Amino acid sequence: MNLPIGLFDSGIGGLTVLKEIISLLPYESTYYLGDTARVPYGTKSAETVIGYALEDSKFLINKKIKLLVVACNTASAVSIPTLEKRFSIPIIGVIEPGAKKAAKTSKNKRVGVIGTTGTIKSGAYQKSIRAYNPEIKVFTRACPLFVPLVEEGWTNNLIAKLTAAKYLVNLKKEGVDSIVLGCTHYPLLKKTIKNVLCGNISLIDSGEETAAKVAFILKKLNIENRSEKKPERLYYVTDSIERFKTVGEKFLGTNIENVEKVAL
Amino acid sequence: MNLPIGLFDSGIGGLTVLKEIISLLPYESTYYLGDTARVPYGTKSAETVIGYALEDSKFLINKKIKLLVVACNTASAVSIPTLEKRFSIPIIGVIEPGAKKAAKTSKNKRVGVIGTTGTIKSGAYQKSIRAYNPEIKVFTRACPLFVPLVEEGWTNNLIAKLTAAKYLVNLKKEGVDSIVLGCTHYPLLKKTIKNVLCGNISLIDSGEETAAKVAFILKKLNIENRSEKKPERLYYVTDSIERFKTVGEKFLGTNIENVEKVAL
Repeated sequence: MNLPIGLFDSGIGGLTVLKEIISLLPYESTYYLGDTARVPYGTKSAETVIGYALEDSKFLINKKIKLLVVACNTASAVSIPTLEKRFSIPIIGVIEPGAKKAAKTSKNKRVGVIGTTGTIKSGAYQKSIRAYNPEIKVFTRACPLFVPLVEEGWTNNLIAKLTAAKYLVNLKKEGVDSIVLGCTHYPLLKKTIKNVLCGNISLIDSGEETAAKVAFILKKLNIENRSEKKPERLYYVTDSIERFKTVGEKFLGTNIENVEKVAL
Repeated sequence: MNLPIGLFDSGIGGLTVLKEIISLLPYESTYYLGDTARVPYGTKSAETVIGYALEDSKFLINKKIKLLVVACNTASAVSIPTLEKRFSIPIIGVIEPGAKKAAKTSKNKRVGVIGTTGTIKSGAYQKSIRAYNPEIKVFTRACPLFVPLVEEGWTNNLIAKLTAAKYLVNLKKEGVDSIVLGCTHYPLLKKTIKNVLCGNISLIDSGEETAAKVAFILKKLNIENRSEKKPERLYYVTDSIERFKTVGEKFLGTNIENVEKVAL
């Protein structure tokens, strides 16, 4: 099926999910919406985030997409049931694939989850991991400074290291053997987080797992793209195109063209 | 005149301005609107911020206020001319009072300004300071991590100190003798900033200067409150009441009651 995959995020973070999808499914077209006029979602209430997620989804579904990826942990944590009730296309969030991988990866049944305040408070990872394996103990920590550190480009300096050490000290003490990077910005801090943990702890990137699930669902529903046309890459933002391109290219690792500013 | 003063901010930062106004004008009633569903404004484009500022102002003016304080540096930097064209009550932003004080304070005619990306990029402080004294050289630095540091409550730890040192090193090198705290969150970092500068550099708090200007205008227009009724303190937010109260009380230094969630 030659329709695009739609993804939305509160801003640019979801581009790390898009990157994984492009890498795994290079022939699929993608439409990406970043709600940059209202970013971030991670500090806001569930009610507000659900309202935003509904508007984001509606916008993309009106553009005719075959599958919707909620490429934002906070929105995935609180809005998926509402979106599934409202829309009929397949909807994939980033929480469940990350949770599943964590449940499979952990040997000592002690898993850590880090994310925004909104994601952690929602309890979505905790619930989802225990749904796969009720014996697992989940330890969480909200890390509100990680997003601004990444956006400032300070991913590997002393400030980033001290911040990571402060946020992760308790998870280390609890003896977790896997940590879910429960925010789409965090893969850019992977190296620093690894260094701070300095042990044998697996980091689980929800973006990678989500891309794998998208591939699985496209195949299962038999809606993969089989045309040989060059895939379309469109980007929509609700605030300045310039900033999205400049910062976004760091996240995506390639040039961003075809960005349009839209009102939701 | 027994009508309240209205203030708006992108979120909770403007409470530092409210605090100064309450301290200087304890008999005046105040209505405060924090646009917490769309916070922050400082990373967003001028066009988007002007749209938000118009909605915020309209909401407060409909509540019958006698004077409007734009208690947000980013909104003050980009929206005052638009607001003045649209509404007829007196409107006071935080930029001009801070700029005036800086122009008066600096002896060596070298002034630093720190703020959000939006405020610094707008050039509003630079323009306003030079309007008071064209001989002054203005040096600026956007400090995007200061707001999340304050909201995390990390105002005086090693991470805050290293961040302040990194942001302020060039202003120090330029030999400024005064620095304007061009963001309503920054007064909570005053001590750390002072320590890092470790010289004879004056810190100018736009909130204090704004309160003084409000007092001056009320007197000049003869619209001070002369009733002996207890002043009203009302708060409106666009997102969760709980978070506003918890974090806001740190900013205001007293209890926050009478918060209502509203849609703009």
